[in-house]
Amino acid sequence: MLGGYMGRILRVNLWRNKYYIEPLPPETVLRSWIGGRGLGVYLALKEIDPKADPLGPRNKAFVMTGPITGVAGVPESGRWCSVTKSPLTDTIHDSQSGGKFGPELKFAGFDAVILEDVSEKPVYLWIHDGKVEIRDATHLWGKDVHATTDIIQEELAPEIGRDEAKKIKVLAIGPAGENLVRFAALINDKSRAAGRGGHGAVWGSKKIKAIAVRGHMKPKVAKEEVFKEVVAKMVKKHRESPVTSEGLPKLGTAILVNIINKAGIFPTRNFRTGVFEGAEKISGETLAEKYLDKKKSIEESCWGCVITCARYTKIKNSPFSGEGGGPEYETIWAFGAQTGTDNLEAISKANFLCNELGLDTISMGHTIGTLMELVEMGKIPPEKLRGLNVKWGSPEAIVELVWRTAYRSGIGDELAEGSWRLANKYGAPEVSMSVRKQELPAYDPRGAQGHGLAYATSNRGGCHLRAYMISPEVLGVPSLVDRFSTKGKPALVKEFQDVFAVIDSMVVCKFSSFAIWDEDYAEIISAVTGWDISKEEVHRIGERIYNAERAFNVLSFGDGREYDTLPKRLLEEPMPEGPAKGHVVRLNEMLDEYYKLRGWIDGRPTRAKLEELGLKWVADRLEEEGLLPG
Amino acid sequence: MLGGYMGRILRVNLWRNKYYIEPLPPETVLRSWIGGRGLGVYLALKEIDPKADPLGPRNKAFVMTGPITGVAGVPESGRWCSVTKSPLTDTIHDSQSGGKFGPELKFAGFDAVILEDVSEKPVYLWIHDGKVEIRDATHLWGKDVHATTDIIQEELAPEIGRDEAKKIKVLAIGPAGENLVRFAALINDKSRAAGRGGHGAVWGSKKIKAIAVRGHMKPKVAKEEVFKEVVAKMVKKHRESPVTSEGLPKLGTAILVNIINKAGIFPTRNFRTGVFEGAEKISGETLAEKYLDKKKSIEESCWGCVITCARYTKIKNSPFSGEGGGPEYETIWAFGAQTGTDNLEAISKANFLCNELGLDTISMGHTIGTLMELVEMGKIPPEKLRGLNVKWGSPEAIVELVWRTAYRSGIGDELAEGSWRLANKYGAPEVSMSVRKQELPAYDPRGAQGHGLAYATSNRGGCHLRAYMISPEVLGVPSLVDRFSTKGKPALVKEFQDVFAVIDSMVVCKFSSFAIWDEDYAEIISAVTGWDISKEEVHRIGERIYNAERAFNVLSFGDGREYDTLPKRLLEEPMPEGPAKGHVVRLNEMLDEYYKLRGWIDGRPTRAKLEELGLKWVADRLEEEGLLPG
Repeated sequence: MLGGYMGRILRVNLWRNKYYIEPLPPETVLRSWIGGRGLGVYLALKEIDPKADPLGPRNKAFVMTGPITGVAGVPESGRWCSVTKSPLTDTIHDSQSGGKFGPELKFAGFDAVILEDVSEKPVYLWIHDGKVEIRDATHLWGKDVHATTDIIQEELAPEIGRDEAKKIKVLAIGPAGENLVRFAALINDKSRAAGRGGHGAVWGSKKIKAIAVRGHMKPKVAKEEVFKEVVAKMVKKHRESPVTSEGLPKLGTAILVNIINKAGIFPTRNFRTGVFEGAEKISGETLAEKYLDKKKSIEESCWGCVITCARYTKIKNSPFSGEGGGPEYETIWAFGAQTGTDNLEAISKANFLCNELGLDTISMGHTIGTLMELVEMGKIPPEKLRGLNVKWGSPEAIVELVWRTAYRSGIGDELAEGSWRLANKYGAPEVSMSVRKQELPAYDPRGAQGHGLAYATSNRGGCHLRAYMISPEVLGVPSLVDRFSTKGKPALVKEFQDVFAVIDSMVVCKFSSFAIWDEDYAEIISAVTGWDISKEEVHRIGERIYNAERAFNVLSFGDGREYDTLPKRLLEEPMPEGPAKGHVVRLNEMLDEYYKLRGWIDGRPTRAKLEELGLKWVADRLEEEGLLPG
Repeated sequence: MLGGYMGRILRVNLWRNKYYIEPLPPETVLRSWIGGRGLGVYLALKEIDPKADPLGPRNKAFVMTGPITGVAGVPESGRWCSVTKSPLTDTIHDSQSGGKFGPELKFAGFDAVILEDVSEKPVYLWIHDGKVEIRDATHLWGKDVHATTDIIQEELAPEIGRDEAKKIKVLAIGPAGENLVRFAALINDKSRAAGRGGHGAVWGSKKIKAIAVRGHMKPKVAKEEVFKEVVAKMVKKHRESPVTSEGLPKLGTAILVNIINKAGIFPTRNFRTGVFEGAEKISGETLAEKYLDKKKSIEESCWGCVITCARYTKIKNSPFSGEGGGPEYETIWAFGAQTGTDNLEAISKANFLCNELGLDTISMGHTIGTLMELVEMGKIPPEKLRGLNVKWGSPEAIVELVWRTAYRSGIGDELAEGSWRLANKYGAPEVSMSVRKQELPAYDPRGAQGHGLAYATSNRGGCHLRAYMISPEVLGVPSLVDRFSTKGKPALVKEFQDVFAVIDSMVVCKFSSFAIWDEDYAEIISAVTGWDISKEEVHRIGERIYNAERAFNVLSFGDGREYDTLPKRLLEEPMPEGPAKGHVVRLNEMLDEYYKLRGWIDGRPTRAKLEELGLKWVADRLEEEGLLPG
């Protein structure tokens, strides 16, 4: 028996307003791609024309779980992921999220949902114990994520009872997705975001408002005795790691504010420096002391989590009163240091609004910082701002610009296109601190060389979650390496990229990687599915996924060496102060070695590498299009 | 020659996507109804089924000017008005606005525009020197008023030249109108609102986004020599009135904050008292001292105005930074005293946003006050507010709730229905301080008995502009009467209602009434049109209009005595403090006398009265429906 999977994919053709229940691909395919992100890129290569308009009818959106999602006992197995072609980056793009939706989708009977074509009218899906309905969502169009969630729970209550309806998990887009904001998010459980890359806009273009799920089926485990042992070992390792047993439970991801700022790589005012004078005011410590609701934070935890890093905060007696899940470290940074704002109340408010309106907090805050630099440069006609104080450190700007972006009001209409298009429109492309048009997150790579290489070679654009080199370079996990050295970094980046691709395919939380690694992941996949997977196979699966993603990008827009780069500021302007003072990212010292380790030429997979990974069919397609290197 | 009029109506059938240019009705009709509001109710009785859904295809929207609109030399002749059946009140409803749009519509060749049926796709009208185009507005749908205005000017520039395009005047709805907010406004010239009664929602339901006008025709004057004399006399009287020559020019309408508060009738915290402790902080004096941009205020003036009460303000270094036209007295009150907020920066910001998003500031601020009382009473489930501090005096609440209402986000979806529906939904109808479901404005009638009668008998619902009894009762114009007495008030209210109906039909600004009155209006109408109208005829025209409006309402929802009333609080709870302490509105002492003067029975026009006014056809309709009293 193949454990972990529910065995069924739900395919919804929105144009025909029909759904089809299909079996999962054959076991050989599953073992090659596992699920989640991996199975997503496989399906994308099979079903999405890489040249399709991301916001047109030929793009598809995949809602994916993996064999470990919702398997009781496995730490951090409460996640799911979305895979699509991104309207922000034009790359293949996966975006991961926690909360409780992912397991519930499996409990409702499905491993994945494929959304194809576009609907004429807004619809939502109701998936309940193996049954499926495509329901009208005209009344939900225009509603924010919280209202959408509440209304769906209310309107289904007469059918399944009030208590059961309260347990319905809803994944939805907000107005930002409807308005095709290029970094609109998918939000589940009201405050969990598959944030990056504008998957919400893809849903908006398809007029799919939400997916509601509830079920009582459970994924089965193939080798129960082994499973118990493996889980016990995983839990023990979580207890032994200070990150997963102390830091994250105590302060959540916001613990990083002080750590990263002290390392001098906390990007400040659009990456002009790496030290933010206001860091203490927006730190995890300050957040916990002033704004945390401990009881509700526990309710916010992901399904099956032993770390419980989730936060729920309340802002009172402030021009920015509000409450909700978060803010996470990346969000605090994006609305904080990136915009020069040390007002944690405004930052939290902006975060709450992003969750309600359906926006990626990283790209939102980051792009506001881009705008602020453009304003400072005199590139933005003042009347465009309608008197709003769009300057470094303006708390009101970060809140108002969230409203404006979600609804494309005033200058928000231009912010909604993301920093790359914004900066290009106003004739200052160098001001967009992005890779493949996706805004960089909260670590200045001038003080973490490997992290710089990870940014540059990220298949989904500027991202810290393809290879979190901050872990070895700053946090010392698994062991500390010299962050200012480029030596050995290509191999480390490749290892992280490959293993992370598997984590995203299982699907489990990357925070587990602070406690466990390749062998552990191999053991848990094996115990759950019944396969006998070695840690070497884990690396090979990861490599396969990474190559497949890159191949998709090559087919989409000719991805390759010219995209494997960083904003000029990070390559040419030395960090002006702090512990990383004087450094730039020495990308050239790493890139060729990285390509060699990957078996790539100029950033493109070779036939030899692809065939080695069982991707001859991909190599053939690249060759047909004249895109095979060498 | 009949002067003043351009002679043509533009009829646009939105369903057929066709337009028709029609002559004005015959001269006898024009002389009976003048134009603007009067001609509007005439057309409404002829063309709109009074029972039609205001947001359905059978309602119509009329954009009206009058014979005095745009006649150079006449003070305050820069206005226009919108007439429709209101989705807020279900009454016939006219809403007046200043700026520069009204004259320009006439210069473009038309006295009025009739919008009928509904369009399948968003459209806008471009009216240019007698030529008309119905243009696609898909790209404008979702845009706010300012962006819509700018984009239209830009996209027409290639056709008529950049300089001419800058002179295009745009009347538009914002997102609030598109989202059918029941008090969505029509906004022209970016900051001038035909605010009350939800005309913006009617446009939204018809998918008409904007009307853009530009032209070089001029209305002609019939008796030029007389005209010069009359104008000279009008201007002289304006100079002699301290209100029109000093108060309004110096401080704008905001001059009233301190005056009305000192009179103890500045409605505070949803009309619980008439004295606001924070009045000084939000006064016209404070506004002028801290936030006024004098140069831009002059640019804001209405076409042809000698008073120049318009304000343009800038808020800097504040959580509420922004700039724009206003705020007016009513707006300051609605977001200020009504919500207990003494933060003029937040009030101004809320005002700017209402203009951008297309909302009536009075109903918006007022309804926030209603919500605050409901919150205090414990009627609103806390989770509905998502942590926003919705309490008396919360500056952040008034700003955020504007965003939420325009886009129907969260609790904004319920605010968007107006105070009457909100209070009823939560089981506290007495908390809505409205008449005929329209929110009362900025004067507590417990200290101005006549004003109370004017509110109660207002055909368009709670309104200070049907009969501004504050003028004689508080400001002493034309002469001071005892505001706590009911004696003689019915006659005064009737006189004001009738003369104001004519002012709204000419169309000129009511502020002229601080300087001139019936005889002057008779003279200017006569000089411009060529008729020989007496002041008695002015009163008769006004009476005709008032009766016709009431008849429409009777046909619509059975209007009559039960609607000619005030919220219980004003009738039964004595004013708790200040100069009006101990008073209630003694409506019963006035209503029967008022009916007698009107020739009405139980709030409904009689056949005798209607026939006397030449409205036999209206009497016949009432009789057919069994709605004729007596």
